[in-house]
Amino acid sequence: MNEQGILIVISGFSGAGKGTLMKSLLAKYDNYALSISATTRRPRLGEMEGREYFFKTREEFEQMIASDELIEYASYVENYYGTPKGYVKDKLKQGKDVILEIEIQGALKVKEKYPDALLLFVTPPNAAELKKRLTDRGTEDCKDIECRMLRAVEEAEGIEKYDFLVVNDKLEDCVHNLHEIIQSAHFQVFRNMEFTKNIKRELKDFSKGEK
Amino acid sequence: MNEQGILIVISGFSGAGKGTLMKSLLAKYDNYALSISATTRRPRLGEMEGREYFFKTREEFEQMIASDELIEYASYVENYYGTPKGYVKDKLKQGKDVILEIEIQGALKVKEKYPDALLLFVTPPNAAELKKRLTDRGTEDCKDIECRMLRAVEEAEGIEKYDFLVVNDKLEDCVHNLHEIIQSAHFQVFRNMEFTKNIKRELKDFSKGEK
Repeated sequence: MNEQGILIVISGFSGAGKGTLMKSLLAKYDNYALSISATTRRPRLGEMEGREYFFKTREEFEQMIASDELIEYASYVENYYGTPKGYVKDKLKQGKDVILEIEIQGALKVKEKYPDALLLFVTPPNAAELKKRLTDRGTEDCKDIECRMLRAVEEAEGIEKYDFLVVNDKLEDCVHNLHEIIQSAHFQVFRNMEFTKNIKRELKDFSKGEK
Repeated sequence: MNEQGILIVISGFSGAGKGTLMKSLLAKYDNYALSISATTRRPRLGEMEGREYFFKTREEFEQMIASDELIEYASYVENYYGTPKGYVKDKLKQGKDVILEIEIQGALKVKEKYPDALLLFVTPPNAAELKKRLTDRGTEDCKDIECRMLRAVEEAEGIEKYDFLVVNDKLEDCVHNLHEIIQSAHFQVFRNMEFTKNIKRELKDFSKGEK
């Protein structure tokens, strides 16, 4: 069957647990690669170049845009964030399923450029649980729970654009489901046109040979 | 998540091993129901009413057509074959994934009427293996290998209309893959609109309550 990796986009509410999910998925299965974003924001304490992000100056980042080195990029709270092409393409060729953990605007840009990409949206089981998780968790640009809930309302508007909706209730179940969904996608007919073409040709040759 | 079952259509080359696959799938997992077709052809030795088929007279079958009791039907070597609606609808409501094992013409009719149906095509790993399997296996209307290979060529033309292509090389792997593909489909966003609508409403209510 097909040996090329699949480009996976994972989005979801902040507080849906995407970070933990990705860590578990990558620890448990060896067929994934996590794309590392480039950004112009400064490293936070404990962040390492090439692990959390590739840290770039504004000038460097704009050079990457100019030379079409990014799959997608967005500017967010005065900083650029983007997905470098090289790493993703290399890993896909090696047969790895490459995961981009990005926001909805970026996700839709990826889908436009790469219609074969698989878009997954991760959600807590219900809004009450999301609120609970957001209560304990500030982000730099959205310090109060009110701001975070309003952002979740906005994020929810995009769910219909995704291919799959995965509930993160129990971490292990969710990791298992993500893995099943991604592995199943390898069997989609449009990803196996080479196999289909070959078996059609072989069948024709055989049926002629029999006459 | 969604509790309605999914309508599954499984087709594939004669000789692809669909019968054995279905038996193993149903023996291994209890969330499936296999639809039983109605036919006007006579029972073969060992076949039982309501197990292999519902055996109908031509008159009875045409009455079922007239009263719209069939999901799809086709006439094949002077006999009718069709899928009764009642059983399928009952099982879907109970949350079972209902499998129709039918030919491509029927499969496409089902997809037209039920766009949410999942269409799977089963194939041996290559044409040589298919030929080997067909050599040992006659059918009533296509007694020689030549006829069977030509039919396989025709069947192959339809593969692109299916959603998934599953290679039946090792039975157990294939059963596992079929199960994964079908279970993953439950997470498709369009099958979870109720959940999506609810979480959107809850989020809006919460974010208003916070103000």
